[in-house]
Amino acid sequence: MDSAAFVSGPAAPPCAPRLAQRISSFKAAAPSSNKTQSSRVIAPQYLLRSTASTGVRMGVASPSKVSLMELFVEPSKLAAAKTEAESLPKVALSEIDLQWVHVLSEGWAAPLKGFMREDEYVQSLHFNCIRGENGELVNQSVPIVLAVDEAKKAEIESSGNACALVDPSGSTIAILRNCEFYTHYKEERVARTFGLTDKRHPYAEKIYEAGNVLLGGDLEVFERIRYNDGLDEYRLTPKELMAEYEKRGADAVFFFQLRNPVHNGHALLMQDTRRQLLERGFKNPLLVVHQIGGAVKGDDVPLKERIMQNKAVMEEGILDPESTILGIFPSPMLYAGPTEVQWHAKARMNAGCQFYIVGRDPAGMKHPEHGEDMYDPWHGKKALTYAPGLEKLEILPFRVAAYDKSVGKMAFFDPSRAGDFLFISGSKMRAYARDGEMPPAGFMGEKAWKILVDYYASL
Amino acid sequence: MDSAAFVSGPAAPPCAPRLAQRISSFKAAAPSSNKTQSSRVIAPQYLLRSTASTGVRMGVASPSKVSLMELFVEPSKLAAAKTEAESLPKVALSEIDLQWVHVLSEGWAAPLKGFMREDEYVQSLHFNCIRGENGELVNQSVPIVLAVDEAKKAEIESSGNACALVDPSGSTIAILRNCEFYTHYKEERVARTFGLTDKRHPYAEKIYEAGNVLLGGDLEVFERIRYNDGLDEYRLTPKELMAEYEKRGADAVFFFQLRNPVHNGHALLMQDTRRQLLERGFKNPLLVVHQIGGAVKGDDVPLKERIMQNKAVMEEGILDPESTILGIFPSPMLYAGPTEVQWHAKARMNAGCQFYIVGRDPAGMKHPEHGEDMYDPWHGKKALTYAPGLEKLEILPFRVAAYDKSVGKMAFFDPSRAGDFLFISGSKMRAYARDGEMPPAGFMGEKAWKILVDYYASL
Repeated sequence: MDSAAFVSGPAAPPCAPRLAQRISSFKAAAPSSNKTQSSRVIAPQYLLRSTASTGVRMGVASPSKVSLMELFVEPSKLAAAKTEAESLPKVALSEIDLQWVHVLSEGWAAPLKGFMREDEYVQSLHFNCIRGENGELVNQSVPIVLAVDEAKKAEIESSGNACALVDPSGSTIAILRNCEFYTHYKEERVARTFGLTDKRHPYAEKIYEAGNVLLGGDLEVFERIRYNDGLDEYRLTPKELMAEYEKRGADAVFFFQLRNPVHNGHALLMQDTRRQLLERGFKNPLLVVHQIGGAVKGDDVPLKERIMQNKAVMEEGILDPESTILGIFPSPMLYAGPTEVQWHAKARMNAGCQFYIVGRDPAGMKHPEHGEDMYDPWHGKKALTYAPGLEKLEILPFRVAAYDKSVGKMAFFDPSRAGDFLFISGSKMRAYARDGEMPPAGFMGEKAWKILVDYYASL
Repeated sequence: MDSAAFVSGPAAPPCAPRLAQRISSFKAAAPSSNKTQSSRVIAPQYLLRSTASTGVRMGVASPSKVSLMELFVEPSKLAAAKTEAESLPKVALSEIDLQWVHVLSEGWAAPLKGFMREDEYVQSLHFNCIRGENGELVNQSVPIVLAVDEAKKAEIESSGNACALVDPSGSTIAILRNCEFYTHYKEERVARTFGLTDKRHPYAEKIYEAGNVLLGGDLEVFERIRYNDGLDEYRLTPKELMAEYEKRGADAVFFFQLRNPVHNGHALLMQDTRRQLLERGFKNPLLVVHQIGGAVKGDDVPLKERIMQNKAVMEEGILDPESTILGIFPSPMLYAGPTEVQWHAKARMNAGCQFYIVGRDPAGMKHPEHGEDMYDPWHGKKALTYAPGLEKLEILPFRVAAYDKSVGKMAFFDPSRAGDFLFISGSKMRAYARDGEMPPAGFMGEKAWKILVDYYASL
């Protein structure tokens, strides 16, 4: 998603047969009726299985042990843990380190029990998945690691292999136990995660600046991570999301990952997905509009403005508040394209997501050297389709939406009358907002648009 | 393996618990007796399964449909195929392309049916494995792709999407059908395969020089690939190897991958593995000493000298000719470390290999920029241990061998008397041979050593 529908580009190319089958299976696997046609192509078994396991038979996401794993210290042991932490070596967390502690603590990265040990890291880097307790493959495409320097390693090793984690404000927030150290091969990590080694890539830059040692261990977090920025109420944990589905009586949950404002093209995709789920027989599909909450690159719209804008979209009724939850995903943004989109999907699966919408060039960005797309814009969708450990998630590719001048609103792009469509890229949209210009009527709700204009005026 | 035992370095660090378990399970899973101790650590289920499925119960590798897939044109259709090829657009193969045609044609890369299509490529690049027909994960860690330029793409597209492949000598050797084209993102391919983007890496260099379009399709090879270099008799196909196991009545098959001469440290490892397999109850374990037959970097010993040297080692009785097969693996060398070692293992699994020996820094090399190891020397072993699609292969990590001055022969390194040991690196060995100096007695068989000396004298 991300900048997906803002990015100008051609319509989706013809899908490979298997992918097409996956797409068509989405439509075909209706519980109520029309389990019909469309099958001269034989669907591979695993796609059929996948559809079956994510279809209506499953109903609402059922809280499982794994997906609700949290890494908080039990309240009865909290005082003792805090006292113990005082005597431990301290590791100062960067802003992004803290966001990963947040992610880990609430179970988005389950079954990870803390920052990765070397065996987990090697698997994540090479396979984008790791072996669970029983040898099963669990998707984990991005390494979640903590870098320290040699001096800190020596200090922790000589103090019983545990340390206290201190957030950027100076508060001790967690203990990391049974520490394990291994070499931080930065260039290799960057290469395998991002498909480049350029130091100007926004997340790679932070890797190159980090310590030369990686520190894995078991994480025990004292209390829920809060930022007191007025947005904490949107930072629902997987557990809280599960409770919300229950409360609203949802029988299907689909997620829309964002690091952008919502325009009417996005809204169209979400509405259309809901329509399809209803057609398949679900009675109460619930949409989670899920904004990236962690660090984003400088030219992305800040979290606060995105949330305000998203709220306005719901208030304007463009997204139905009854069947929509607005939430924040505490992960930083990596800009790792096909590698990262798996993380986006897997983390949401841990929050009960059954259907995940993916578009063009998810988590992509322009190459810092030559300015072209870093990734083939359709590799993200392909990676999601085949990713080990995501078999139970149904991937919903979306059609490209653009501004249809013939009707004055966002609509699915129809290549047979391409001239009617206007692609409004992210930079185009920002230019409109910055210059106080109105985009074409029907591009975005008025109230929502004003929030962006005000933001850019404030810069 | 490769330069493994030549490389000077410390003894293996303490293994992570799971890895240790895998090692100890090798020893514990004896069919005859002593299924004993050593298990305070609980082995994850998949490791137990793995051991079970590769243990004695399986006996000799049984030729399966997949592992014996060949891509040769049926003799009855050969004349027609050759006639057809004359009218098709021609794609000129590089030396390495030809080696990949060789690999594909004999089924080493089964179930690949030709050069990778985009869906296979994306999976290989991101997961080091691809989905088989039934959704199962098949290991395929290195992309096997064919690069062409835009003009060739246009030519093939306008001629019915098939082309003829022409080897470097000008002979048409195969047809590629149902062609599919996709963009060759070279930097990303290099980054994800090698963990760097440096253009001086020997295989990366060839990728950067190649065309901008990748061409996938179904391969139909006219005849067995021959090089007429006096070594073709060692280029046994998986089918021929299987027949040889049968003929020799082997009940276990283990492989030793090499791109180096065999010194007595290597021999010790192979002998010791045989001893362990006999102890586990196998009656007739068969060793395949398997030299990389494709392109290697400039300072590696050429194939001809390696084979002559290996033959001498067998003639000198250092390796028992009765229980050893000397063979050539037609793949080029990639120098892709933990990524490539999976390919080395998977290809051999397709040739009936049940036990695969892995050492320090398999398929590693020095970084072209700073001269340090490109990879953590133990990541190859870790990757093999966890790799999706290699569950049925039992990985046998080996102990580091070095020259033990106290007894005047190669022996397993004993860190408690480190001073007794001399590590003779690859460059050290080459320096000895180049300068006509003798290495310490017991380092290598005399006849075998002379072959190296003669080779270096000829340079």
